[in-house]
Amino acid sequence: MQLSQLKKNEIRVFAPASVANVGCGFDIFGFALHVPGDEVYLKITDNPGIKINAISGDDNRLPKDAKLNTAGVSLQAMMEFLQTDFGVEIEIHKKMPIGSGLGSSAASSVASVYALNEMLTEPLEKRQLLEFAIAGEKITSGDSIHLDNIAACLYGGFILVRSKQPVDIVRIPTPDGLHCVVLHPQIEIKTEASRKLLRKQITLEQAVIQWGNVAGTVTALFRSDFELLKRSLDDVVVVPDRAELIPKYYQIYEAAMSAGAIGCSISGSGPSVFALSPDETLARKIGQAMADVLDGLDIGSDLYISAINNDGPKVIQ
Amino acid sequence: MQLSQLKKNEIRVFAPASVANVGCGFDIFGFALHVPGDEVYLKITDNPGIKINAISGDDNRLPKDAKLNTAGVSLQAMMEFLQTDFGVEIEIHKKMPIGSGLGSSAASSVASVYALNEMLTEPLEKRQLLEFAIAGEKITSGDSIHLDNIAACLYGGFILVRSKQPVDIVRIPTPDGLHCVVLHPQIEIKTEASRKLLRKQITLEQAVIQWGNVAGTVTALFRSDFELLKRSLDDVVVVPDRAELIPKYYQIYEAAMSAGAIGCSISGSGPSVFALSPDETLARKIGQAMADVLDGLDIGSDLYISAINNDGPKVIQ
Repeated sequence: MQLSQLKKNEIRVFAPASVANVGCGFDIFGFALHVPGDEVYLKITDNPGIKINAISGDDNRLPKDAKLNTAGVSLQAMMEFLQTDFGVEIEIHKKMPIGSGLGSSAASSVASVYALNEMLTEPLEKRQLLEFAIAGEKITSGDSIHLDNIAACLYGGFILVRSKQPVDIVRIPTPDGLHCVVLHPQIEIKTEASRKLLRKQITLEQAVIQWGNVAGTVTALFRSDFELLKRSLDDVVVVPDRAELIPKYYQIYEAAMSAGAIGCSISGSGPSVFALSPDETLARKIGQAMADVLDGLDIGSDLYISAINNDGPKVIQ
Repeated sequence: MQLSQLKKNEIRVFAPASVANVGCGFDIFGFALHVPGDEVYLKITDNPGIKINAISGDDNRLPKDAKLNTAGVSLQAMMEFLQTDFGVEIEIHKKMPIGSGLGSSAASSVASVYALNEMLTEPLEKRQLLEFAIAGEKITSGDSIHLDNIAACLYGGFILVRSKQPVDIVRIPTPDGLHCVVLHPQIEIKTEASRKLLRKQITLEQAVIQWGNVAGTVTALFRSDFELLKRSLDDVVVVPDRAELIPKYYQIYEAAMSAGAIGCSISGSGPSVFALSPDETLARKIGQAMADVLDGLDIGSDLYISAINNDGPKVIQ
């Protein structure tokens, strides 16, 4: 692909944070938020290759070497596919916490490939972009790659990863008004460390409870049935082990539910905790109740309130 | 409750066979058929107690002692709840094979309690009838009680057993035209024996595949998306172990799929094998292809073709 096949030579893109697992849907459910998210600025150059010019908001924790950076590796996969004879320079502006369980690396990867795609006169399909983002995720997750964050971030809305091999992503509708509260305690949990806590085996009895809840969750989303959603969201397989990594997890959970949340669980591998609310006003009340639990502890926290983001990434000015 | 609170003193009821598990939904999915099913004739008497006057179609295999018969025990639970001062005499006409994986005992139990309920001037809700039918199922299944057959038989349609404790039954819509083919090889597999084959533990990896498929199945049913249903129906947890009990299971499966089935799996704990079809014409072709596999074996078989039965039990003349 040559420079002449591009319709612009610079672009700025936002890609959203996402909540993965979503209670009972370990490794299969995810949804995108409006806030927070990452911004990527991408500029075309004559020199082949990928140069990361700047990364902000990461406290110097992310590699600037494109070969070691998830966004760089994702772009590399895309440019190899396109057989580009040009290069790109990128700036990554992290506007969300890293290692927070909100799909931070997915947001950077998706923003980058979405940005380049928006410059093409004949853009690729999202299904193809997903493959490039997967290549980027592999450098942090290894073989235990999970697709819920990148799929939610890229497609927007509530997504089901029906299957990882072959990749099968399905959109599920969400009720009007549904809002998400995210409380991010400022401690870091590495995805890889968190996954090591997972049991390799579960009892058939637990599994049956879990897939009953998974089916209940999907039904509730189609029917906008908040009561059924409330009965269905809990995870019995992963959260009990992971909760110990999160300060006062069960108190945060109780605070959210007492304040009227539809459900509350760990976002991705944590430490962020999310809760669902039928509307924005109640979401603010739930968020306050959750944040209050951390008061008096020596832990900073971020609180985000967002409707479900049905659009995914977008070009910004 | 006294005789005067009844609006009639005899009734005849049909209750349908049902397909449980439905591929990936082990212990949580079930749906009702129009054929086959059981008929129960119930007559009120002045003498307290339950008397089973006749059972037909069972080759003398079912107990006539009401305390040992699932229909009798279900009725007993209902009559205790109602504190009846009258008795009932019943006839059970098995019009479906016993031990076939089609919810035979559930059909008799449901028919009996539904029959008595239809005689009440103030009938109980189905949710209450379910409890009585559960009491009946317990004498054959013990503590490993599963609700998918009785719930599907009683409510009709496609049901999700979201939870067994507490009981939470949810209806899921099915696409217009959806038909079911059932091939019943005339061998008997006892539910209890079949359940002993189940693993107590499964890998988390298998579990994730399974609940991805469960979520895919529910989504497909809401969307009438036969392609997604086809990708989602397979079970990876139970069928591989149980298939060995069914003669030529994998050949039957292949025959159904090659003939155009949306999916094919074991009904309940077998030996019946069901397949789904988008319409009745194709269902007949699929049924023939499945039945042909048993040709030349020394095993008789029954073939049933039915749309999903959205009504459940019904009063007949």
